[in-house]
Amino acid sequence: MSELAMWRDGATRRTIVDFVRSVTSGPDAVPAEERIAVFDNDGTLWTEKPMQTQLHYIIEQWTALAKEHPELAEQQPFKAVVEGDLSWLGAAVDKHYAGDDSDLKVLIGALLRTMTGLSVEDYAASVTEFYRTAQHLTLHRPYRDVIYQPMVELLDYLAENGFTCYIVSGGDRDFMRPITQEYYGIPFERVIGTAIGLEYADGDVRYGTTLDFFDDGPEKPVRIWTRIGRRPLIAAGNSNGDIEMLSFVQGGPHGLSLLVHHDDDTGRGDTPYDKGAEKALATSEESGFTVVSVKDDWSAVFPPESA
Amino acid sequence: MSELAMWRDGATRRTIVDFVRSVTSGPDAVPAEERIAVFDNDGTLWTEKPMQTQLHYIIEQWTALAKEHPELAEQQPFKAVVEGDLSWLGAAVDKHYAGDDSDLKVLIGALLRTMTGLSVEDYAASVTEFYRTAQHLTLHRPYRDVIYQPMVELLDYLAENGFTCYIVSGGDRDFMRPITQEYYGIPFERVIGTAIGLEYADGDVRYGTTLDFFDDGPEKPVRIWTRIGRRPLIAAGNSNGDIEMLSFVQGGPHGLSLLVHHDDDTGRGDTPYDKGAEKALATSEESGFTVVSVKDDWSAVFPPESA
Repeated sequence: MSELAMWRDGATRRTIVDFVRSVTSGPDAVPAEERIAVFDNDGTLWTEKPMQTQLHYIIEQWTALAKEHPELAEQQPFKAVVEGDLSWLGAAVDKHYAGDDSDLKVLIGALLRTMTGLSVEDYAASVTEFYRTAQHLTLHRPYRDVIYQPMVELLDYLAENGFTCYIVSGGDRDFMRPITQEYYGIPFERVIGTAIGLEYADGDVRYGTTLDFFDDGPEKPVRIWTRIGRRPLIAAGNSNGDIEMLSFVQGGPHGLSLLVHHDDDTGRGDTPYDKGAEKALATSEESGFTVVSVKDDWSAVFPPESA
Repeated sequence: MSELAMWRDGATRRTIVDFVRSVTSGPDAVPAEERIAVFDNDGTLWTEKPMQTQLHYIIEQWTALAKEHPELAEQQPFKAVVEGDLSWLGAAVDKHYAGDDSDLKVLIGALLRTMTGLSVEDYAASVTEFYRTAQHLTLHRPYRDVIYQPMVELLDYLAENGFTCYIVSGGDRDFMRPITQEYYGIPFERVIGTAIGLEYADGDVRYGTTLDFFDDGPEKPVRIWTRIGRRPLIAAGNSNGDIEMLSFVQGGPHGLSLLVHHDDDTGRGDTPYDKGAEKALATSEESGFTVVSVKDDWSAVFPPESA
C-alpha cells in the first residue's frame, strides 16, 4: 500500500495519515460509501501556471477562428490572441478572483462561440487530440507530465483506503474528462466542473448557447451535493474559489480540508505564487484548513518526464 | 447468477439476454466502464398509479402548510388538497404530458414554497421518515412493496454482467435518494432526477427559490451526459417523457431501449393504462424500442408483502 512516500514527514503528512486512519478504523470509522474526497484540479492536481491548460486549448481554437473571421481580431479576447498579448487572458481570470467578472464574461462568450452546436463526442475527440500533442507552454513537456505527483499519490492512497475521489473544478467538465482516468485514475462520472448548457436534438447531445454554471466558490458545494448527495470527508484546493468547498467539508462531523500553498521557490519546475489564494491563505487557520506547503511537504513536484 | 426468472420466456426476454451477451462477450463486447444502463423510475421501476409517490408526500406537506396558513386554501394546488379533490393534481401531470405546462408550473411553485430554505439534510430526513411509515394509497402496502420485481431483477442481472445502472427520472432527485440503495441497489451518486436549485451559505446546502431543471423529455439525455459522460447501452422507460432518452440510447453503436407497456388487466395489483405513453407506444416500432408487456412478459409484478 502506498504510504505517501512523496510527502515529507511532518505535521501535514501526519494530519492526513491520522485522519484517514480515524475514519477507516476505530470508534470514528465511517462506512466506505461515505468516504468521499473532492479535489480541485488547476493548481491542486496539476500546475495552472503560466495559465490553465484549458486556456491553452482555447487560444488554439480562437486563433483558428480569427483566421476564418478576420473581423474578430478587432475584439477581445480574439485581439489578445491574434496579437500574442496573452496577459489580457490571465488578467481576466485574476479579475474574477478579485471579484470582477466583466472580462470573464467576455471570455465565456467567446468560448461559447467555439462550442455552440458542437456535439459532445466531437468536442471530446478534439480535446483528446489536443492532449495527445500539446506541450506545456513554459516547461515544454506533455500535460500529463505537469501533474503533481504527491497529489496523485494521495488520490491512490485514499482509493486504497476505500475512498471514492471526485474532481470538483472551475474548469470545463468535458475538457477534463478525456484525461482524468489516465492521469488521475478518476472516471468520467466523477468529474464535476463548469458546464456549458447542453441540448438534445436528433439523437445527439450538443453544446448550447449559454453557460449552465461556473463551478467555483459557493457553486462547488452545490454541485457536490447535486452529483454525490453527500458531504465529503476530505477536500483539497488551492485558491479563493475553493474556500466554500473546503469550509463545507471542514464543517462536517468528520472533515479534513487541505489548502495547497504554492510557496516552492526551489526551482523544481513550478512557480511560487499566492495570487488568487490570498483570502484562502489568510483565513486558513480560523477555518481549520490544513495548509500543504509545496516547498516543505512535498519531496517531489512533477513526475520524471515520460517517453 | 440471476437469469431473469420473473421474465417469461419469449421475444422480449430473449432480446434482453441476447443483447447483454453480445456486449459482454464476443466481437461486439464493450469494456465494463462503458456498460451503462439508465432507468426511469415512476412507472418503470415502481407503480405511478394512482399518482406518483412524490405527489403523496407533497400532499402531506401542503396539508400541513394550509393548516398553518388558511388563506392558502383558496388557491391551487392547496385548494385541491384541502378539499380532497386530488384529480386536479393528476390532471396537472396529465396536461404536462399533453404538452401544457401551465398547471405543472403552479405545482412547482407550491413545491418550492415548501422547500425554499430547507437544508438538503433536513429534507432527506423528512423524506426518509415518510417512506418509513407511508402506505400506498390504494394498495395499502409500504412503497417498498410496490416496486416492479422483474425490473429489480433486471437491475441485478445487469450489475452481475458488469453494468453500472443509473436512475434517470422526472421525479425529484433528492426524493429518490433516501430509498434507491435499499429498494434498487442504486447509490445516491447514480440518481439523476429533477433538481431544485441549491444555494450554499454558512456551511450548509439549502434549496433555493427556483427549479434548476425538470428532468423529462429532451432533458434526460442532456442530464445523462452531464452526469455520466457516456451514451448508455441500455435504457428503460414507460412514457412519452422517456422517448428522447430511449432514442439517444437506441441511436448508439450498441443500444437496447425498453418501453414498459402497462397492459396488465389480470388484476395483479397494478392498473393497465396507456395514458401519457401514447406517442411512445405508437412510435415504438419505427424507433426500434423493445416493448415490455407487463401482462405477457412478467410472471410477477410486485414482491410478496414484507413484514
